[in-house]
Amino acid sequence: MVESTGQWAVDACDALTGPRCSDHPDYLFRPYLGPAHLNALDQVAAWMGEAGMTTRIDGAGNLIGRYGDGLKTLIIGSHIDSVRDAGNYDGPLGVMLGIAVCAALNAKGRKLPFAIEVYAFGDEEGSRFPAPMLCSRAVAGALTLAALEVADAQGVGLAQALDMNGLAMSRFLDARRDPAELLGYVEAHIEQGPVLEAEGLALGVVTAIAAQIRYAVRVTGVAGHAGTNAMRLRKDALAGAAEMMLAIERITGAGPSDLVGTVGRISAGPGAPNVVPGDVTFTIDLRAGTDAVLHPAEAAIVAELKAIAHRRGLGLALDKTHELPPSPCDEAFRAMLSRAVEAVGVTPREIVSGAGHDAMIFSPIIPSAMLFIRCKDGISHNPLESVEPADADLACRALLNFVDQLEANYA
Amino acid sequence: MVESTGQWAVDACDALTGPRCSDHPDYLFRPYLGPAHLNALDQVAAWMGEAGMTTRIDGAGNLIGRYGDGLKTLIIGSHIDSVRDAGNYDGPLGVMLGIAVCAALNAKGRKLPFAIEVYAFGDEEGSRFPAPMLCSRAVAGALTLAALEVADAQGVGLAQALDMNGLAMSRFLDARRDPAELLGYVEAHIEQGPVLEAEGLALGVVTAIAAQIRYAVRVTGVAGHAGTNAMRLRKDALAGAAEMMLAIERITGAGPSDLVGTVGRISAGPGAPNVVPGDVTFTIDLRAGTDAVLHPAEAAIVAELKAIAHRRGLGLALDKTHELPPSPCDEAFRAMLSRAVEAVGVTPREIVSGAGHDAMIFSPIIPSAMLFIRCKDGISHNPLESVEPADADLACRALLNFVDQLEANYA
Repeated sequence: MVESTGQWAVDACDALTGPRCSDHPDYLFRPYLGPAHLNALDQVAAWMGEAGMTTRIDGAGNLIGRYGDGLKTLIIGSHIDSVRDAGNYDGPLGVMLGIAVCAALNAKGRKLPFAIEVYAFGDEEGSRFPAPMLCSRAVAGALTLAALEVADAQGVGLAQALDMNGLAMSRFLDARRDPAELLGYVEAHIEQGPVLEAEGLALGVVTAIAAQIRYAVRVTGVAGHAGTNAMRLRKDALAGAAEMMLAIERITGAGPSDLVGTVGRISAGPGAPNVVPGDVTFTIDLRAGTDAVLHPAEAAIVAELKAIAHRRGLGLALDKTHELPPSPCDEAFRAMLSRAVEAVGVTPREIVSGAGHDAMIFSPIIPSAMLFIRCKDGISHNPLESVEPADADLACRALLNFVDQLEANYA
Repeated sequence: MVESTGQWAVDACDALTGPRCSDHPDYLFRPYLGPAHLNALDQVAAWMGEAGMTTRIDGAGNLIGRYGDGLKTLIIGSHIDSVRDAGNYDGPLGVMLGIAVCAALNAKGRKLPFAIEVYAFGDEEGSRFPAPMLCSRAVAGALTLAALEVADAQGVGLAQALDMNGLAMSRFLDARRDPAELLGYVEAHIEQGPVLEAEGLALGVVTAIAAQIRYAVRVTGVAGHAGTNAMRLRKDALAGAAEMMLAIERITGAGPSDLVGTVGRISAGPGAPNVVPGDVTFTIDLRAGTDAVLHPAEAAIVAELKAIAHRRGLGLALDKTHELPPSPCDEAFRAMLSRAVEAVGVTPREIVSGAGHDAMIFSPIIPSAMLFIRCKDGISHNPLESVEPADADLACRALLNFVDQLEANYA
């Protein structure tokens, strides 16, 4: 391990790219259970081994490195999958910092009264199967087998993808951990927003993860010849969808700054330049720090979409595919993390996470907390993602301090 | 021949389906130089023979039935190929009506001072090779050999496809006719739009085939995390594209009824539900009967798209991929066709064709005109295409009246 653990963590994330660790030749794309995912796990497991950890892969394809022993276990987790055309740090940095913490403990021969397990979750982004955080949900016992009946865009089902990787659907839920054995969950992650950078702070302590709702929307009109259908007689599903997208932008833009709404995916059929679209599907992603902000915005958007469809004579189907309540972090863990941040010389800034994280899956069942790390220009899900090694170093030291506090308080 | 020529023409189109005359088992698909095309020509040639015509196939694979004799020739043309999952009438009905006209003349033993040649063009739709109207362009002498270097989606080149059908690339351009030998061109076709049906008229007289412009548009913003990027800080390429699509709809909708604008294809990248789109491409198809309508609309759309991109801080690239001038029909031919329509008891409604037709290939070199026939719900390029036999009958009688007028005016 190099002198600075922060530099090592950043370098390790950078090393998880290239043809072996990405499923696309031109950019980073490491979806769950793709060839790159499995290659990345080989590399990460090797690093875990060097840090004095024993490794295993669970039924959901999560790689787990265990340091030390004890009746109870602290999980330090993050995900190893990526979105398409991703940056290097969203996900992997939290895994590397967990390894770096164990490496530092190991270097000093530290024995703790509890074990630390670093989880590299296989899927958080949902960039392959339309069901994000499958792997942390499996560990938290927050999944049913019915939720696993999903397929990717190529029609490959999760069961088949598991088979192709030596895993089995019948063992997927075995990834579940008994909460009674777990001390808690802590996760370090880049902020993916501009707040810490704007305030000149390397680290932040998350108070809650925003509530999130997703819809799959289908707008149906009448496909027709682009040359022979007068404008006033058309039922153009794409023009209707365009009006709906602007309504979503207008309604969320008029709310508080933590309210955001995004149409990230759209498809229009039949999809020929000379045919009026008759069938459009798109997604809506809505988030806010509290239900009190999110729910009225959702209601306003649904009402406006229905009004637009009605006025244009279009069919509209709204399918709520995903709903997550806000996830407040554990008070005691949060307080320890704030003290840890202060101990490494950073003012502990409290911050709401607009992004979902695996931590929100654990907060209903065990004490959970999140540490945010400043990133350049707030950019994420983009190859321009950038983190200062010095900031990663502070994060590693804060996590070590957090572990020290946990040990000191351990009954 | 059955009692009603209209019923015969509709029945003949319906007979050109089934396994022999379609290259797809589940729907009608008769691409140029496929097995179904050649089988269909056998059948159509047989009908031409029964109508007293001599038949031949030219170098481009067009089937030609010739009735009577004379130094000059009137072409009655349409196409025999179809789009994928097609209706029965777009194309073939015009061929059948040409045969029906000759059959009616033949039944009376009519001798004209000119010949009539019914052309069944092999390719108009461009549904196999990416070059529509290859066959009428060959006849009009509007092709170079370079334009023939095309291949279908399976990689079969036009030269190879010709060989497989006993034709030869070296003879393709021999299909050209000397305009000096041609009296003119007339084509009957279903309207493919809702105007005649809305006005209760069986027939319409085409004034011009619309001018057409196509753009490929690219809008670039900044991709970002859907949860962490405040609405006011986003550069969302899809929200910008939505505003542009509504501007296109608004500008074309405010113009005369022959002005139409269509966004038929859209793609948003990176295309994940939880990522703000940074890169959107879409197509624009703009059409109008005259440049005087089309060009100001085009200028207004381009200006508005630039203004939207500027206001939102988005990049905008506009690539004009296609431009066809309007093809006005010949004044004298149009007047004769109007009189012919009136003679069969239909108010001669003048109409701009928003769709392209083989007639536009001939209008620059010989007098050309088009007769539109009402179709159900304006539907075409769809198995639901439907034409009333009574309307086809009126079309046949109008074409016969047109031939009578041409004979009377023949110097």
